[in-house]
Amino acid sequence: MQTKAQPQSGLTQPMVPQSMLEENDMKARVLTQALPYFKKYAGKIVVIKYGGNAMISDDLREAVMSDIQLLSLVGVKVVLVHGGGPEISATLKRMGIASRFVGGLRVTDAETAEVVQMVLAGKTNKDLVALVQKMGGRAIGLCGLDGGLLRVKKLEQEPDIGFVGEITHVDPSPILDALQAGYIPILATVGADETGQVYNINADTAAAAIAGALRAENIIVMTDVRGLMRDMNDPESFIPAVHVSEVSSLKRQGVISGGMIPKVQCCVEAVRQGVARAVMIDGRIQHAILLEMFSDEGIGTLFH
Amino acid sequence: MQTKAQPQSGLTQPMVPQSMLEENDMKARVLTQALPYFKKYAGKIVVIKYGGNAMISDDLREAVMSDIQLLSLVGVKVVLVHGGGPEISATLKRMGIASRFVGGLRVTDAETAEVVQMVLAGKTNKDLVALVQKMGGRAIGLCGLDGGLLRVKKLEQEPDIGFVGEITHVDPSPILDALQAGYIPILATVGADETGQVYNINADTAAAAIAGALRAENIIVMTDVRGLMRDMNDPESFIPAVHVSEVSSLKRQGVISGGMIPKVQCCVEAVRQGVARAVMIDGRIQHAILLEMFSDEGIGTLFH
Amino acid sequence: MQTKAQPQSGLTQPMVPQSMLEENDMKARVLTQALPYFKKYAGKIVVIKYGGNAMISDDLREAVMSDIQLLSLVGVKVVLVHGGGPEISATLKRMGIASRFVGGLRVTDAETAEVVQMVLAGKTNKDLVALVQKMGGRAIGLCGLDGGLLRVKKLEQEPDIGFVGEITHVDPSPILDALQAGYIPILATVGADETGQVYNINADTAAAAIAGALRAENIIVMTDVRGLMRDMNDPESFIPAVHVSEVSSLKRQGVISGGMIPKVQCCVEAVRQGVARAVMIDGRIQHAILLEMFSDEGIGTLFH
Amino acid sequence: MQTKAQPQSGLTQPMVPQSMLEENDMKARVLTQALPYFKKYAGKIVVIKYGGNAMISDDLREAVMSDIQLLSLVGVKVVLVHGGGPEISATLKRMGIASRFVGGLRVTDAETAEVVQMVLAGKTNKDLVALVQKMGGRAIGLCGLDGGLLRVKKLEQEPDIGFVGEITHVDPSPILDALQAGYIPILATVGADETGQVYNINADTAAAAIAGALRAENIIVMTDVRGLMRDMNDPESFIPAVHVSEVSSLKRQGVISGGMIPKVQCCVEAVRQGVARAVMIDGRIQHAILLEMFSDEGIGTLFH
Amino acid sequence: MQTKAQPQSGLTQPMVPQSMLEENDMKARVLTQALPYFKKYAGKIVVIKYGGNAMISDDLREAVMSDIQLLSLVGVKVVLVHGGGPEISATLKRMGIASRFVGGLRVTDAETAEVVQMVLAGKTNKDLVALVQKMGGRAIGLCGLDGGLLRVKKLEQEPDIGFVGEITHVDPSPILDALQAGYIPILATVGADETGQVYNINADTAAAAIAGALRAENIIVMTDVRGLMRDMNDPESFIPAVHVSEVSSLKRQGVISGGMIPKVQCCVEAVRQGVARAVMIDGRIQHAILLEMFSDEGIGTLFH
Amino acid sequence: MQTKAQPQSGLTQPMVPQSMLEENDMKARVLTQALPYFKKYAGKIVVIKYGGNAMISDDLREAVMSDIQLLSLVGVKVVLVHGGGPEISATLKRMGIASRFVGGLRVTDAETAEVVQMVLAGKTNKDLVALVQKMGGRAIGLCGLDGGLLRVKKLEQEPDIGFVGEITHVDPSPILDALQAGYIPILATVGADETGQVYNINADTAAAAIAGALRAENIIVMTDVRGLMRDMNDPESFIPAVHVSEVSSLKRQGVISGGMIPKVQCCVEAVRQGVARAVMIDGRIQHAILLEMFSDEGIGTLFH
Repeated sequence: MQTKAQPQSGLTQPMVPQSMLEENDMKARVLTQALPYFKKYAGKIVVIKYGGNAMISDDLREAVMSDIQLLSLVGVKVVLVHGGGPEISATLKRMGIASRFVGGLRVTDAETAEVVQMVLAGKTNKDLVALVQKMGGRAIGLCGLDGGLLRVKKLEQEPDIGFVGEITHVDPSPILDALQAGYIPILATVGADETGQVYNINADTAAAAIAGALRAENIIVMTDVRGLMRDMNDPESFIPAVHVSEVSSLKRQGVISGGMIPKVQCCVEAVRQGVARAVMIDGRIQHAILLEMFSDEGIGTLFH
Repeated sequence: MQTKAQPQSGLTQPMVPQSMLEENDMKARVLTQALPYFKKYAGKIVVIKYGGNAMISDDLREAVMSDIQLLSLVGVKVVLVHGGGPEISATLKRMGIASRFVGGLRVTDAETAEVVQMVLAGKTNKDLVALVQKMGGRAIGLCGLDGGLLRVKKLEQEPDIGFVGEITHVDPSPILDALQAGYIPILATVGADETGQVYNINADTAAAAIAGALRAENIIVMTDVRGLMRDMNDPESFIPAVHVSEVSSLKRQGVISGGMIPKVQCCVEAVRQGVARAVMIDGRIQHAILLEMFSDEGIGTLFH
Repeated sequence: MQTKAQPQSGLTQPMVPQSMLEENDMKARVLTQALPYFKKYAGKIVVIKYGGNAMISDDLREAVMSDIQLLSLVGVKVVLVHGGGPEISATLKRMGIASRFVGGLRVTDAETAEVVQMVLAGKTNKDLVALVQKMGGRAIGLCGLDGGLLRVKKLEQEPDIGFVGEITHVDPSPILDALQAGYIPILATVGADETGQVYNINADTAAAAIAGALRAENIIVMTDVRGLMRDMNDPESFIPAVHVSEVSSLKRQGVISGGMIPKVQCCVEAVRQGVARAVMIDGRIQHAILLEMFSDEGIGTLFH
Repeated sequence: MQTKAQPQSGLTQPMVPQSMLEENDMKARVLTQALPYFKKYAGKIVVIKYGGNAMISDDLREAVMSDIQLLSLVGVKVVLVHGGGPEISATLKRMGIASRFVGGLRVTDAETAEVVQMVLAGKTNKDLVALVQKMGGRAIGLCGLDGGLLRVKKLEQEPDIGFVGEITHVDPSPILDALQAGYIPILATVGADETGQVYNINADTAAAAIAGALRAENIIVMTDVRGLMRDMNDPESFIPAVHVSEVSSLKRQGVISGGMIPKVQCCVEAVRQGVARAVMIDGRIQHAILLEMFSDEGIGTLFH
Repeated sequence: MQTKAQPQSGLTQPMVPQSMLEENDMKARVLTQALPYFKKYAGKIVVIKYGGNAMISDDLREAVMSDIQLLSLVGVKVVLVHGGGPEISATLKRMGIASRFVGGLRVTDAETAEVVQMVLAGKTNKDLVALVQKMGGRAIGLCGLDGGLLRVKKLEQEPDIGFVGEITHVDPSPILDALQAGYIPILATVGADETGQVYNINADTAAAAIAGALRAENIIVMTDVRGLMRDMNDPESFIPAVHVSEVSSLKRQGVISGGMIPKVQCCVEAVRQGVARAVMIDGRIQHAILLEMFSDEGIGTLFH
Repeated sequence: MQTKAQPQSGLTQPMVPQSMLEENDMKARVLTQALPYFKKYAGKIVVIKYGGNAMISDDLREAVMSDIQLLSLVGVKVVLVHGGGPEISATLKRMGIASRFVGGLRVTDAETAEVVQMVLAGKTNKDLVALVQKMGGRAIGLCGLDGGLLRVKKLEQEPDIGFVGEITHVDPSPILDALQAGYIPILATVGADETGQVYNINADTAAAAIAGALRAENIIVMTDVRGLMRDMNDPESFIPAVHVSEVSSLKRQGVISGGMIPKVQCCVEAVRQGVARAVMIDGRIQHAILLEMFSDEGIGTLFH
């Protein structure tokens, strides 16, 4: 690489320190490597499923908010879909309401449903909006109730877990209107049925449905793991790309298990609904979104 | 009036029962009386400060949501600004946080500020949105954080009442964008300062500032009283219109007092900021908004 | 209904006279009942075939002009198609030209055709335009010659009745252009053949063809009868809705007869050309158009 | 000129008959001479005051209608304002109503006003529209009532001449809307006062006021004389251009007299209202409009 | 024709000299004859293949530039495609590079290709642009490299003639963008392959391909002959129109031969690619383009 | 910096090699540092004066073309103005025409002027266009003749140096039209006077005038020196920013001298014409444009 920064033979040479040459060369290399990706994603919709450590750590949260602004500035139409488990649990506890889970899903009685809505749409969502605005971006916080964005019905399962919703229809207009007006839409995943009853919705599932309805180019699912690995203890066994048809086999092999299942399911569902690329990235890495989207190597596991 | 429903002499007469003639006549009269007002308000922005009994009673709440949809359908650009005192107090109580007021303003420590945001922007606001959507309208719920709508600073007063904000700047773009895209914007009055700290903001004050920034044609302030009356016990003493220059005199006379002061102040402030008409209406009357806007008599006290 | 105007138990009650409560309640009921119809018709094209008593009586004429302005104000794209028999006959008489009819159609020699054009397009039409303008609306008067709106050929029949035209092509552009520019188009039904010869055209037939070419949502045909009735002398026998397939049977039964035949034919023809609803209303009832379009009951006979 | 058609020395010469060369040369010369005028008038509004022999003769009328289409095709926004004296008189006579004139203005009682409206707006106007349409153009016939185009008041003078109107306001929107939609607006000069009463308006005066309100580039007034001439019997004394300040002097000298006075007044008035060029042309010359507008010499008398 | 200029019997006659009447009549006739053609071509794309004597003679060149401006002014979207053989040869000679031809095509080594590009795109092209601009028009000079307008591959033939290109793709966007912005695009026919290597392209072939890609209404090919003639020495044997299916037969008969072959091929190719009319005209006639497009007779041989 | 890549205490740590962490951190740092500059320049016009070694070296030329595409992709409106001395001299030599300079300006007789136009507009310009296109960008090559972009007059000086032009008017429309249509305009600096005579124009001067006429945000002037330095031999004496008022003093001190004078003059002139920032950068550094525009430090000398 260094040689490129050297002037051509026969030309006068710029008199600058070697360290500056290297620094310049590195900067130029990163920016120019990003070039074809800027081109690729300009004007395209990218849905980011945001959660986990990247949402808990102050530094990581700021880095994510900075990343989505960068995407937005270079013309990517970013949509952020977030969950908010820890804040919901904390508020429920404060209000003396017990949290109970069945199969990873929160048992949601009427009172809990109200708290979920209140915390997700009023606290987590608007705090993210305020953070983007404070950092100089333009964001709008919406939930599935706004403009009838998410229409749901009760998720039927045994035992009954209450007001947990299954999406029956996504109306992408409020998101598209916000994008059109130049805002980054930040979405809390609660929705209502036709009687107006509000339901809690799994954020991974919602993100996949929203990405499908938006005919997004990309969905990026943030996790707290490195990505898919054949052997959890061997970094070399990292799997950079998986075809959705391989997923059931990988589940049988135990490569996909535990908390990764819903994330993988989100990716698979999005691809099935026509999203071109679904990537699971490690949200613990600073600026993981930029690194995934704007470098040749990427950093996550791609489902296609 | 009845004579109008009678056919002209010399013309064949329609053979219909008298009661139907009267009913038809009445309907036609109401619709045609509304005509010049439809024309007057079409394409104009009307801000409604919503609160009090009209927000507590289910019937009244539905009537208000129905009214704003009617306005929206006939081309009025309606903006709803709401408070939410009772729900905030109930949630604080549930969380074991004491509510304390100084001079009518809630003392707001950091924890209270978070609850105010959570309840106003996540519960009250989105419940109203869901109600409009359920009734067939299109609404978007925003708060002062979205798109940097309300920029505030700490309201300086003695004794210190914590995170109660004074508006320093209104950016009407998010409201105008929502109106442009065909939504009824419903606004919760919390806002942030430049550090991102969230503040509680008096909803009456916020409504006046928003109406001013929007160059609204009209602001309608919903109260729990009949309007201004020289003698509270004499319905005949109702005052249909007041020039803003008369307000200080009416205060001295005690005609404006108690809880009416902030409502009147909201009207006066809006007029000063260039809103053409500010009306205080009795929110306890069903469809008070329609009656005020679409009939010759109106039903409230106009400040001009 | 009255109970709705009563405040909820536990809320302070507005101190207003009972009569005012009832009046308010009635107004609110009419306005809110109209709501879903405003929504239904907003942006849709409605053709009104205007004639008969509603055109002769000053009061009824003003009421019709007021109604079409109300429709226009609430976003309905109203198109008024009118005839003008009485004025034509009066002018012909004044000019010493005899009026002669064959099978309800005016025998139209070259001189008569000129008078028909002159009266319909220059007098009846422009008087209606002037009335709408005087009442504060915006109207444009067009005839079938303008912009080549109606292309006709000679209606072939025995005995020959002269320059009576049959429509061969409707070019809706001039109407759509006028609607687009915010005017109420008022149409006189004369048209030319390719040699430029002007013909008289039956206004009912023309209205149906125009409604079809405009893909109108609705055509409202004003008559001087209550609507279809099984027994002309029994108001209870009124028929609120008829499927077009029932029409021939109703003709055989004599329910449809005499002057009603061309009106019914107009409705049937419009429905066949794709207009969703064709309604025959009693033009002798004041504001019959508003009552038909904006109340649950309607007042006419619907052909669908 | 002929030399131009000759090929350059040294180049091969086209083998064509001399007569064809001359014909080609002439055609090319006319078309290229017209070039800068096409450029000058493209997108500009030109008002043509149409009347006199050019309206009576079939050939001349067709030539005028052809000319305005040519103008329209090359991007000129043509507006035709016409009178219609002879047809009005004929119809009045037919109806047994006497025509009476005072100072060149028709004494207009209520009945006469109706006939004027009927003939001008319904006959003369629509016949011209039909002629343009038959020739393949697109025209719309409007009168001063349409869209409130001409607002008038009674022309006060002694003796009283009845419903003869003086223009108080021109609303150019209906004309501009028609131009925008691609039609040639053809205008009959009747208008209403605020009570809706219709008035006859002098067509020359109306044309000047309309040209002014439209900020027209040009007004062309068709007359039955060669133009201004110092000596009526000496073609050499033709005056090609006059400054409006010279007009009163020319009147005193008798150069401007009789029927020419209202035409000249129309030109002067238009120039005063900001129209750049007002030209009086001889309507008896075929295609006088084209010759005036698209050749270097012009054919009329220019007022500037 | 002269009779038309005579006023109708019974009308006052304009007192003008007979010669002026004739001159006026002639002007009016030319302009009105052009009318339907203005209408026909307005908004349509016309490609002109420019070359030969019309490019060498100063007078003819100015006449062509004047003609394309006239077309542009009357709304025709003119595209000029030019060659430039003589200037290329002169420059090559000046630089000491020999010109060599095989089968009418220039043998183009790398150095020659550079000179071709330099002369065509930098000299011939920009000189034409400057001429149009100097005459008051607006032109933009483009070559096949601009915006990737012409993508080529090496024309494979024996013997190898070097960098002579065959068009593989025409991207009409740069031309359409220039037309949209109101410029006359003037095109030099060099293009590049995917490696960026520049090729010389036969201008006749390029013009046909460009006309096809633009879905042009018309292509006009300028030649140095009168058109197709059965007998070169007999002007009477001129062939005004040929169906493309007749071409091979005419070649066999020797009617199409020599330098006319590529011109005819250009016309045939354009017609095959969907251009409605392809006309070969004699560029030695002044204003041949106007005469062809705007008169009933035309002057060239039409291929359809 | 490295600490940022470390996960927060209490959070699970990503298991990735340290070198990858550093690489990721570096990439993220460069991209996020560029963020505020993307925002700053998005939608702004930046003029780049291109010349010197950056134009001669293949690698540097490709890097510059890559840089302007990156700018274009992130929404900057880039305009490239180039000179072309070496290619002109080479072609003149090849044609046996002697190059002669007076005070740094080429003595330009009529023949030389033609060669300058041919080489600059046909060779240098179009080669750059072809290079951008080959690399996947969209460029249009224009010269001062296109659309009348540059109007010049003879630069009067002693001794006479022939057809060297001084700019009298810049019409920015062709550049703005090209930007609007999504192309990178590449400009060769020849222009014509009103007689159509073509002149050579100094590229530095032209770039300043063009930047002024475009109200550019930025002009970047590429040179073959490091920037302004108080001591040419001491890299530490580099001057990062200069106020235009200091320039004459720096000239007197000899800091600005020789070939740097026209570059500095270009910067000063652009600032005087309202360009916010004029920067002189070292074109010998790869991707100098990106480094200047998208990093905090910049690399050139800013004139403000």
